[in-house]
Amino acid sequence: MSKVRTSLLIITFLLSAVSHYLHFDPLIQFVLSAIAVVFVAGFLGKATENVAHYAGERLGGFLNATFGNAAELIIAIFLVKEGLYDMVKASLTGSIIGNLLLVLGLSIFLGGTKFKVQNFNQSLAGMNGSLMIVAVIALFVPAVFFNTHTITVPQTETLSLIVAGILIVSYIAWIIFSMITHKDILTENVAEGEDHEEPAWSKKKSIAYLVLATVMVAFVSEWLVGTLETLTVRFGLSEIFVGAFLVAIVGNAAEHSAAVLLAMKNKIGAAVEIAVGSSLQIALFVAPVLVFTSFFFGNTMDIVFTTIELVAIGVAVFISKSIIQDGSTNWYEGLLLMAVYAILGVSFFLI
Amino acid sequence: MSKVRTSLLIITFLLSAVSHYLHFDPLIQFVLSAIAVVFVAGFLGKATENVAHYAGERLGGFLNATFGNAAELIIAIFLVKEGLYDMVKASLTGSIIGNLLLVLGLSIFLGGTKFKVQNFNQSLAGMNGSLMIVAVIALFVPAVFFNTHTITVPQTETLSLIVAGILIVSYIAWIIFSMITHKDILTENVAEGEDHEEPAWSKKKSIAYLVLATVMVAFVSEWLVGTLETLTVRFGLSEIFVGAFLVAIVGNAAEHSAAVLLAMKNKIGAAVEIAVGSSLQIALFVAPVLVFTSFFFGNTMDIVFTTIELVAIGVAVFISKSIIQDGSTNWYEGLLLMAVYAILGVSFFLI
Amino acid sequence: MSKVRTSLLIITFLLSAVSHYLHFDPLIQFVLSAIAVVFVAGFLGKATENVAHYAGERLGGFLNATFGNAAELIIAIFLVKEGLYDMVKASLTGSIIGNLLLVLGLSIFLGGTKFKVQNFNQSLAGMNGSLMIVAVIALFVPAVFFNTHTITVPQTETLSLIVAGILIVSYIAWIIFSMITHKDILTENVAEGEDHEEPAWSKKKSIAYLVLATVMVAFVSEWLVGTLETLTVRFGLSEIFVGAFLVAIVGNAAEHSAAVLLAMKNKIGAAVEIAVGSSLQIALFVAPVLVFTSFFFGNTMDIVFTTIELVAIGVAVFISKSIIQDGSTNWYEGLLLMAVYAILGVSFFLI
Repeated sequence: MSKVRTSLLIITFLLSAVSHYLHFDPLIQFVLSAIAVVFVAGFLGKATENVAHYAGERLGGFLNATFGNAAELIIAIFLVKEGLYDMVKASLTGSIIGNLLLVLGLSIFLGGTKFKVQNFNQSLAGMNGSLMIVAVIALFVPAVFFNTHTITVPQTETLSLIVAGILIVSYIAWIIFSMITHKDILTENVAEGEDHEEPAWSKKKSIAYLVLATVMVAFVSEWLVGTLETLTVRFGLSEIFVGAFLVAIVGNAAEHSAAVLLAMKNKIGAAVEIAVGSSLQIALFVAPVLVFTSFFFGNTMDIVFTTIELVAIGVAVFISKSIIQDGSTNWYEGLLLMAVYAILGVSFFLI
Repeated sequence: MSKVRTSLLIITFLLSAVSHYLHFDPLIQFVLSAIAVVFVAGFLGKATENVAHYAGERLGGFLNATFGNAAELIIAIFLVKEGLYDMVKASLTGSIIGNLLLVLGLSIFLGGTKFKVQNFNQSLAGMNGSLMIVAVIALFVPAVFFNTHTITVPQTETLSLIVAGILIVSYIAWIIFSMITHKDILTENVAEGEDHEEPAWSKKKSIAYLVLATVMVAFVSEWLVGTLETLTVRFGLSEIFVGAFLVAIVGNAAEHSAAVLLAMKNKIGAAVEIAVGSSLQIALFVAPVLVFTSFFFGNTMDIVFTTIELVAIGVAVFISKSIIQDGSTNWYEGLLLMAVYAILGVSFFLI
Repeated sequence: MSKVRTSLLIITFLLSAVSHYLHFDPLIQFVLSAIAVVFVAGFLGKATENVAHYAGERLGGFLNATFGNAAELIIAIFLVKEGLYDMVKASLTGSIIGNLLLVLGLSIFLGGTKFKVQNFNQSLAGMNGSLMIVAVIALFVPAVFFNTHTITVPQTETLSLIVAGILIVSYIAWIIFSMITHKDILTENVAEGEDHEEPAWSKKKSIAYLVLATVMVAFVSEWLVGTLETLTVRFGLSEIFVGAFLVAIVGNAAEHSAAVLLAMKNKIGAAVEIAVGSSLQIALFVAPVLVFTSFFFGNTMDIVFTTIELVAIGVAVFISKSIIQDGSTNWYEGLLLMAVYAILGVSFFLI
């Protein structure tokens, strides 16, 4: 990383911190933290790239997805604690569709402008597709039963807890499957030889920087999110639009820059792993953990999403599954994903 | 083309014209124009085949889809001008499902009775599948928001115009992608050597005949459509059934004969391109153009389709995507498509 | 089969018979017939395996699916005769999802614990996927028209009979396709040489035992089902849960043991054929036959399933299609199917 970028990273981070802790006008806080987020996300992208170099594409992608979602999980737990369940679900929805449509779409599009066709492991694409369908089913089924039958509050809570439990078990089993029993099958078989470039940092330094960058992203994200409510009122935006789009875009900044960087280096497999892996982690791990967290706080959050949230998630899963399932991407497929994101964005904005 | 067929083409066309302009009894007009449509569609099929010989399978298929839809677009614009928006949407729906189920189904079935398995370019099938899903999403999302939220008329109009704009941009990008940047990937790699047959007409003559045939189809289609309203009342049919099935079958006559002819010559790739390409053109280009046309007429047609129209389109897309996605077809797959068309036809007929 | 197992088969069968015909307490009848079902199902699995050895994997799978569903068809006809249409539809639903999720899931999971990856004929998987989608469409479309339009009882009956007719024609065409015109394409091309094991019985004996085992399964199933109503009341279970889960699990015991046995011998193609083939047979053949049977009894059962039944079937089809479509399975994919089954089971149990 050049000295200039390092300096800008530190300066913008500090400015954002100052404006937050000294309670500047929210609009100023928002602008400063939005600028800072660009640099910390870039730092995180660089760190992930280095760790990915040592860890292999897939483990690198998984690490990035996890670190990227750490910020979201922390923010969501605060929201759960305050009982803002609608905002939590809107931001989970936004995070899933943001990863599957915007992060994946932009990565595929920009990667596709540089490389005519980009290929990645088809077995992984197939497994990811099936996992995404399970995630949709797990969110869809409780909502259908809730909307078509008279179901009591304790029954809804029981159903939510059991479904959450099944999802967490599925997620843990997925880690066992993809990291242990079938690691070799899911590994990218692209010739690694093409990547002669030396990593900028040592292994240890890369890991330390990854942790540091994640922490910085978490902080800046939180400062940015803190300004949103005031801005929502000031500019007359609906809460669901803010939750599902603004919060999600900011919360995914890390995955975003990492995935795009990797795609442009023709490591589209790692980019897909970040985008899809992150959305799977939200649906199969973060959401259930929040259900259990709310249960321990004494006021269980149910897993019943609204119709338009489910439609948004379902739509995002179907188009992204269709696009990644052949293990090959091009610029037009990226554009299609972004077109769907735009349609959803406009619809959410107008209500 | 034999002299007998040429004579029959001219005679039936003139008879139909006479019956139309001299205002014969609608039943007679209907019968005469229905006979004429068989011959003009056959002529168009022949012309397309010749042009496809010179232009290559894909560009030929694209030309055919475009020429086939010209008639539909012209008819629809007249309907829009008169504010018959429900009829427009019903006929757009019918055209999409007619192409994906009846035209594609009959082509695959008849081609399959002659050739055990017919193969075509799998990349193209995959891209077509993704485009179809985007088309379904673009029609589905506004309807869901419209049905689950109180949304004002101006908001619906804005949403319709923006979605229409996104669709047209996607369609133009698709043409750039499939005709320019990735033309080679989507081209059929079947050995062209098998096709030793000499084209009947010169290149210039083929193109001139293609234009002439399209114009004739447009005229005959309009005459036929003009008789339908009287017949609807006389035989007690519902408007939606007439719009979605009778109008659509007639309007697709051109694609129909061309696609079936190509399938039976083992050019299933071109047949798929005509059927799927035509339905994509309706959803991604004709429908949005109609929204903008109505906007310029001062009374914006929204893009909100009825539930059963969306179900019909969704169902047609899912089954046809499932059948074409492996790039290989057989007679049974054609039969399945026609079975779904029959189920939809009976359902629409009964309401 | 060892002498011990043969003795246990006969003893448990006779005990169950005695408890049934001498009207023991329902709980005792239930326990005895549940134990008996394990042994008769094991017997049927062994017989199928032997017949499959002589008949080839696919015909063996088809035979098993048919023999397995014979019991269900007989039970359902009795229910139709008594006009218990809701129970019939619930058990058809349960049988479809039980085969696609539990039988297929457990086979793939257990097969996957023994073999890292199991492969089978991809053409067959693709065709099965398309057939499943047609089945879903055939059940889904009438329900949508029924729920969104005022449709009279005679219209519903007409629609049900026509859709049932289309399904039976599709099913007969499928048999012609898969057994006659395209038999070779759908046959497993796994090296049969690996299976050096001698079949336990002669060809004739295998067939005779297959018939005998099917009859025994039918009897025991009926005895077991006879006890369920009393138990439903005693333990306060909902009828739909009993119909869709308990009846279906028992009714599928035969397919279950046969499919799991085959999967563990690395004949995953035959196991898929049993599970998917059985569910297709229920949707495309058993359900329509019941509609026609009820028509001849003078009180037509419509083909309109409830929303949650359709959701359960749709969900089962989407996830199983996604998992089998690449013609390759592993333990995690089996686990995902069972997770979806668990989610549906809990939801049905709670309402």
